[in-house]
Amino acid sequence: MVASPTGSWKDGPVPPTSPIGLHRVIDPPGVLPQAARVLDPDPTVGADEVRVRVEALNLDAASYRQLEQSHRGDGAAVRAAVLDIVAERGKMQNPVTGSGGMLVGVVDEVGPESPLGLHPGDRIASLVSLSLTPLRIDDGLARWDGRSERVPCDGTAILFGRSIAAVLPDDLPAELAMSVFDVCGAPALVARVVADRIGRGLPTVVAVIGGAGKSGSLALAAARATGATRTIGVVPIEAEAVSLRGADLADAVTLADARDPVALADAVASVGGPADITVVCVDVPGCEHGAILATAEGGVVIFFSMATSFTAAALGAEGLAADVTMLVGNGYVPGHAAYALDVLRGSPGARGLFEARLAREETSP
Amino acid sequence: MVASPTGSWKDGPVPPTSPIGLHRVIDPPGVLPQAARVLDPDPTVGADEVRVRVEALNLDAASYRQLEQSHRGDGAAVRAAVLDIVAERGKMQNPVTGSGGMLVGVVDEVGPESPLGLHPGDRIASLVSLSLTPLRIDDGLARWDGRSERVPCDGTAILFGRSIAAVLPDDLPAELAMSVFDVCGAPALVARVVADRIGRGLPTVVAVIGGAGKSGSLALAAARATGATRTIGVVPIEAEAVSLRGADLADAVTLADARDPVALADAVASVGGPADITVVCVDVPGCEHGAILATAEGGVVIFFSMATSFTAAALGAEGLAADVTMLVGNGYVPGHAAYALDVLRGSPGARGLFEARLAREETSP
Repeated sequence: MVASPTGSWKDGPVPPTSPIGLHRVIDPPGVLPQAARVLDPDPTVGADEVRVRVEALNLDAASYRQLEQSHRGDGAAVRAAVLDIVAERGKMQNPVTGSGGMLVGVVDEVGPESPLGLHPGDRIASLVSLSLTPLRIDDGLARWDGRSERVPCDGTAILFGRSIAAVLPDDLPAELAMSVFDVCGAPALVARVVADRIGRGLPTVVAVIGGAGKSGSLALAAARATGATRTIGVVPIEAEAVSLRGADLADAVTLADARDPVALADAVASVGGPADITVVCVDVPGCEHGAILATAEGGVVIFFSMATSFTAAALGAEGLAADVTMLVGNGYVPGHAAYALDVLRGSPGARGLFEARLAREETSP
Repeated sequence: MVASPTGSWKDGPVPPTSPIGLHRVIDPPGVLPQAARVLDPDPTVGADEVRVRVEALNLDAASYRQLEQSHRGDGAAVRAAVLDIVAERGKMQNPVTGSGGMLVGVVDEVGPESPLGLHPGDRIASLVSLSLTPLRIDDGLARWDGRSERVPCDGTAILFGRSIAAVLPDDLPAELAMSVFDVCGAPALVARVVADRIGRGLPTVVAVIGGAGKSGSLALAAARATGATRTIGVVPIEAEAVSLRGADLADAVTLADARDPVALADAVASVGGPADITVVCVDVPGCEHGAILATAEGGVVIFFSMATSFTAAALGAEGLAADVTMLVGNGYVPGHAAYALDVLRGSPGARGLFEARLAREETSP
């Protein structure tokens, strides 16, 4: 890791850049870009940076909700607020929620030392948050009415040496690709864990809690594609069980409230469990004990849910004398975006679930 | 896992017991013992249970603090409150804090199917919380003044099939053994991860954040004992650096505020990092980004700190495009208590730190 530069970005010969963008941090100095109040959005790329001409921002749902509520739905006021934030901060990070979102754009210039493998003209979605991305808006957001999370815009953004950008595929609609990118860490990590256990001769019954959702369905598809001996999808309601069975993504589908540990463990056991790998893809709190209880001795629990309580997981396993490996589901595995698209391409069932979800989102208010 | 029994515990022939004590749950039915309001503390052991004649309870610090404050330091009132809780709930779980503590006692009777490997006469410390342990107090806590966390008492407790009890060693003072038991998950899991990576030909530079503390020092000792190529201890203040160097537990000791990600990563890099395995043993919030940044690509971060934020870890790794495996530090690894005692026995440096800490605790108010 390159040490923080000693001078300002604009002094003399170009100073070394930091792969994590420390050189872009204006205030306060020395913190990570995500924690900074102000970043430098200068479009001149450093040696390992990439400049993207932005086509649209997708504001994080929490951020948009906060802006909409605080401006009482006044689109022009919301637009002005976003312009102010970006002008002041050099990035789109909601000062109240701390959240950002992501962007879609076209690669404009690639620094000679950029390790990202991008080329000018690549149409990409950023997979690191806007909350750490230097951004400059050039069109006053003239094409945005301020009434939705999708912000058409013209501007420039900077990707650091360490960054994650996914090239939008030619063969899939952009909205579909992006909804996959949203959850691509899950199938990638599940595949990695399944493959690792197969390589070591360990059993691979995989249970996905929340199997009908975006990350859950791709996790099931990835598990099967990687050779898991049995896949089990757990869902909370009959309608999801019907969807999941229709998608033919799991060897078995069972119903359970994931917040009821005994019920969850019993449900998984009833269809071939306990699981050797339990994947938690539901976003409700309180699923830790159940996930642990549903997992066989020596097994793995992968928590993807952002509602996961670290202490509930740690103390839960201890209190149940459970010898399980518990992973914090990392949203990043190298190649995860491309891999997730391949999983989707190879799984008509998963693709169907994604397309149905997108269709519902378009029609609901 | 045995299904929940259909009848009451006292009806007819002894019903199957649940290895996780579901048959002891009176109210509300169907929840885990830790979540129950009331457990059945009947001293009659089920086939896979163990009865312990309790010598002392150690109330969890948060629980004792709550009781002391709410009864304004009146020892008799605190004693009465604890008696009431145990009489009503059949366990010592503070209804306000939800916490328990642990117990020390002598094994009295072992059910024929108990898998715990205990024998009548074994003097043990329970490593599962009092908050899930059926307990009956027989002496009205007559020997407790209500003014400290240590509660001498006479009573019975039940250990389930799945439980964790550590036999107190003959060769070490009980207080020392118990202070090791308190943190024995850390050295055991670190040893497991180091050994696994060595077996796979992966590098093993180990950095322990909070290396001078109880879990940190044992983690360092275990890493070295298992064959880590280099051990690095990170501490926040010079006094701890002096202690840690004096204990000769790490190849290098460096100072850093673990809440400053850049400083932490730089400090680890300055003494042989980045680390292949980073172990977080400090209990202050905000150490996630630093731990991730201090870890090499393909490395492992093990979070033991109960202050760990799941989302900070997950989003932090994603935002830094960090390909690291992040483990929720499980307090339980089979054999961890005995292993931790062995690590202590083999490490005069670690033992010295533990003994110094105990001496300080005895002398401070």
